[in-house]
Amino acid sequence: MITRPSDDQTWTVNAALPVSFSIFRSDKILDPNNKNLLRFNNSSRRLVIVDETVFNIYGAAILNYFKSNNILVYVCIIDSIEEKKNINSSNTILKFFEEHGVLRREPVIAIGGGVLLDIVGFCCAIYRRGIPYIKVPTTLLSIVDASIGTKVAVNHFDRRNRIGTYYPPIAAFLDKTFIGSQEPRQIVNGLAEIFKLAIIKNYHLFELLENYYDRLLDDKFQSLDVSNKVIDLSITSMLEELSPNLWEKVLERSVDFGHSFSPLIEMKNVKTMFHGEAVALDCLFSSCLSRVRQHISETELERIFKTAKNLQLPTYHIDFTNFDMLKLSLNDTVKHRNGNQFLPIPLGIGNFVILNNVTDQELLKTIDLFQKYENSINNRNN
Amino acid sequence: MITRPSDDQTWTVNAALPVSFSIFRSDKILDPNNKNLLRFNNSSRRLVIVDETVFNIYGAAILNYFKSNNILVYVCIIDSIEEKKNINSSNTILKFFEEHGVLRREPVIAIGGGVLLDIVGFCCAIYRRGIPYIKVPTTLLSIVDASIGTKVAVNHFDRRNRIGTYYPPIAAFLDKTFIGSQEPRQIVNGLAEIFKLAIIKNYHLFELLENYYDRLLDDKFQSLDVSNKVIDLSITSMLEELSPNLWEKVLERSVDFGHSFSPLIEMKNVKTMFHGEAVALDCLFSSCLSRVRQHISETELERIFKTAKNLQLPTYHIDFTNFDMLKLSLNDTVKHRNGNQFLPIPLGIGNFVILNNVTDQELLKTIDLFQKYENSINNRNN
Repeated sequence: MITRPSDDQTWTVNAALPVSFSIFRSDKILDPNNKNLLRFNNSSRRLVIVDETVFNIYGAAILNYFKSNNILVYVCIIDSIEEKKNINSSNTILKFFEEHGVLRREPVIAIGGGVLLDIVGFCCAIYRRGIPYIKVPTTLLSIVDASIGTKVAVNHFDRRNRIGTYYPPIAAFLDKTFIGSQEPRQIVNGLAEIFKLAIIKNYHLFELLENYYDRLLDDKFQSLDVSNKVIDLSITSMLEELSPNLWEKVLERSVDFGHSFSPLIEMKNVKTMFHGEAVALDCLFSSCLSRVRQHISETELERIFKTAKNLQLPTYHIDFTNFDMLKLSLNDTVKHRNGNQFLPIPLGIGNFVILNNVTDQELLKTIDLFQKYENSINNRNN
Repeated sequence: MITRPSDDQTWTVNAALPVSFSIFRSDKILDPNNKNLLRFNNSSRRLVIVDETVFNIYGAAILNYFKSNNILVYVCIIDSIEEKKNINSSNTILKFFEEHGVLRREPVIAIGGGVLLDIVGFCCAIYRRGIPYIKVPTTLLSIVDASIGTKVAVNHFDRRNRIGTYYPPIAAFLDKTFIGSQEPRQIVNGLAEIFKLAIIKNYHLFELLENYYDRLLDDKFQSLDVSNKVIDLSITSMLEELSPNLWEKVLERSVDFGHSFSPLIEMKNVKTMFHGEAVALDCLFSSCLSRVRQHISETELERIFKTAKNLQLPTYHIDFTNFDMLKLSLNDTVKHRNGNQFLPIPLGIGNFVILNNVTDQELLKTIDLFQKYENSINNRNN
């Protein structure tokens, strides 16, 4: 709609971009009888971008899926580790699109973890000003996180996700059987985002992690009711927070819990630290901050640390005791939050408050507490 | 909004991104007493990206503007010719943002022609998933075109605007005094987009071009009523077409007139052919196609060619008689229109139809007519 005041000196444009997408649970997505991946497109070909590790395990199944359905498939394999989440990788994918002359409305399929989905999403957002894409997350982390979000990005200038936009897929298909082939440490990596959501949003989810951590780790989310329940609660909790704020018009976001102090530390340790591990450490550190502010009890903080430990998440890293590094990371976070700290921290377990005036003094106290807590937890378990 | 069917297997997200921006006529935008450029931001600094040619003429005025208003200004100068509308230029701007630690909601100011506005818009769209920006178009072409659109892009893979997205500014300020310092050929370049709109959308605008071409060229859009009228009608016509379709959900667009056969030819001749010149040639070629289809009369086609000539637009280029090149360009256009030709062509003067089944035979006839028409126009004027 265009409006003009009577002076004829101004035109005002008002419009709205409607967005609609669905997230489907769809086990056995690569079974040729499961037709989900063939939806949204009538053509006889598909362009698929697959993570290298996933292709090593499922490559034959992927090729067979399309062959059995008489679909010509073109595959682009990407080594989508965090260190390669950059412009080089996105350019490889853009070239793949260009070489195959992707049509403006031809959906491409992305199969992999969060890093792959982020890079592909970014390429789809900017190729010809946007082509549709379908997400098939293959890790616990991406099933509960990247599958749902609309953020797409690559790292740049040594900063996490410095270049990106918001670009929802047309659909995401969640097949938890992929999790069965993940390494234990990768599953723990996914549990970190669930742990984050539980602390800040959902006490019941926290109790499930607290009580069933061993079964969840053993089951690899394959068959137990509690596994299904945990995924379901996580996705629903995440969507509750994300869907009213898809374009981050509001910068006070509970889901940024675990993402305030960690980004720079994660990038610095990118070869050894997984994203979920960085998030979990930040959750623990921010929970200590909450304790400093008296927003959680000692018992609650202890339960949080204990559950992290039981989930095999790291509970200590020296960089989280380095004041200068924490400040540097926080400073960049503050720029990302338009000059505000907007630090989500737990209010008890299952709720949050947002802080905006944390002092250096309080940070130093938090570092002390983080250090002490870790020591005490470890001593008790020794 | 999230909806879930009773089977608990699906989540559906529905949302809408509201967009609102205004285009202001604002003469003497660099007069320190004109406070328009200082709106939308209370901080004591501004980041400004300026085209090199513009800076050579207006650099002192720009610096003085901010100094007089006690605003610290950081300037990034970009040589924004079409050949440099690429990832290198966008990376220079992204680095400028990074170095100065741009906040998430800190509006930056882009001063230049369409190429500069496109590159800056793209950078703002992807830096930290989007920072706000203000457009100050400095050419006739960008005043009637880039100032209004939401498309942002850089060229890539030797293709025009292959990488981009839709990212509206928060405001555009139109100061026609900038046009006064343009070279005549640059003003003609801008007239091409007006010529395009007139043929396809607005008979009255066409008549103004037909009758007042000499005065418009002489006045450089500075003071005559007809100059103001032409800009006003152009912007209003362009907005009527663009604003209901900001994200190009509909690919049958009248404003693509002049942009169907030209993109590849423009890129091939990028050192010698201006964008408007390529568009004008495509308009003439597509008008010949309309004549082949009997959608305009011989008289109308003649008026179109004659007006182009009077406006000092090119009326002939050998590449528009090269069947293979025209087909190659059309093929890429067809991919951009999702497999459809969707060719807007004039229906008389001031209206359009969209063709979707133009044959090679018709293209050959169009080439013949384009060639013949040009000869006849030139002979008549000799």
